[in-house]
Amino acid sequence: MPKNTQISKAVIKRLPRYRRYLKELMTDGVDKISSKEFSKLTGYTASQIRQDLNNFGGFGQQGYGYNVKALYDEISAILGLDREYKMVLVGGGNLGQALANYTHYSNMGFIVESIFEVNPRLIGMRINGIKVRDYEELTAYLEENKIDIGIICTTKNTAQEVSDKLCNGGVRGIWNFTALDVNVPEGVALENVHLSDSLHSLAYYMENK
Amino acid sequence: MPKNTQISKAVIKRLPRYRRYLKELMTDGVDKISSKEFSKLTGYTASQIRQDLNNFGGFGQQGYGYNVKALYDEISAILGLDREYKMVLVGGGNLGQALANYTHYSNMGFIVESIFEVNPRLIGMRINGIKVRDYEELTAYLEENKIDIGIICTTKNTAQEVSDKLCNGGVRGIWNFTALDVNVPEGVALENVHLSDSLHSLAYYMENK
Repeated sequence: MPKNTQISKAVIKRLPRYRRYLKELMTDGVDKISSKEFSKLTGYTASQIRQDLNNFGGFGQQGYGYNVKALYDEISAILGLDREYKMVLVGGGNLGQALANYTHYSNMGFIVESIFEVNPRLIGMRINGIKVRDYEELTAYLEENKIDIGIICTTKNTAQEVSDKLCNGGVRGIWNFTALDVNVPEGVALENVHLSDSLHSLAYYMENK
Repeated sequence: MPKNTQISKAVIKRLPRYRRYLKELMTDGVDKISSKEFSKLTGYTASQIRQDLNNFGGFGQQGYGYNVKALYDEISAILGLDREYKMVLVGGGNLGQALANYTHYSNMGFIVESIFEVNPRLIGMRINGIKVRDYEELTAYLEENKIDIGIICTTKNTAQEVSDKLCNGGVRGIWNFTALDVNVPEGVALENVHLSDSLHSLAYYMENK
């Protein structure tokens, strides 16, 4: 696959969605799909889809459409989903526990290896079989274990400190659930899930429909 | 405030973020801020910020900058955050429970009034003081109570049915946490939080840094 850093964020946002629909088609036993049918399914125009996939070399065949399994595998490879990612989760509160309980992610190759907490009542417990360790041990743990992704579910106030520790400890990606826009060093990927922002956007659209 | 439906989604996505930073400034006792300082804080260019706010009439004053409290109040009004929203949550699993436990939202005026579940072990319980009711009662409940927002935390397979029930019951907004892109009628606002898509984007950026 061509390594193209010019690809827009908007395209990267659509790829997981394409992949989701392709997975459903596979589950339903569908082998191939026309770009028109795929457009109907995903809600994007056929030309948008073609344009998106052309970024990666294009996969369709004139008069045949897309081979569902082949396109799924290609998009998976592009997204880096053909390998396994080890994760640690910092903050074992409600949201942290919810994420730790999502076996869904581990089925996709994203494995939560350990949870770190400051609350002594949680330390030593297991959530979905995953051990909750003392936050004080995070740096030492990262020295001993190769971790790819750090998930931050702490309060906003400690988010930057936690992010720094994770990045210094060698993670390559931060999945941030706090309201703070953390800063990460060059070379570390960052995805923010700002739930409040999403709720505020919803309120805006409700008032302006 | 002018009701302008031409405003792009990108601007609407930035407003909650501006608001978050303004809130922090207020907490820190800051009264006014130059567009340059505000740019540094938020990470957006000063011209981008000016352009965004001009959509709503503009609030800055040449040589003075922005009045923090006034801008905060205006953005809050634009986002519809100067009123209260009643919500119901369908699906009391891990993520549903996590959201129900977020008192943060209720402080912002988003109140979870009731939770609906199919699991008999959960029905009748209270999560964060909020009663868990039988999903069978949802339609009747919506007839008797004016609810603004429906939160969907069920499995993907039932998401569309749940969304239909909520919309038929008069909600004006759907906050969807399932992997399904639900269809909502014209006039109902929709915000999707596709956590898997976010994780997949993260993986992509990690592999392409």
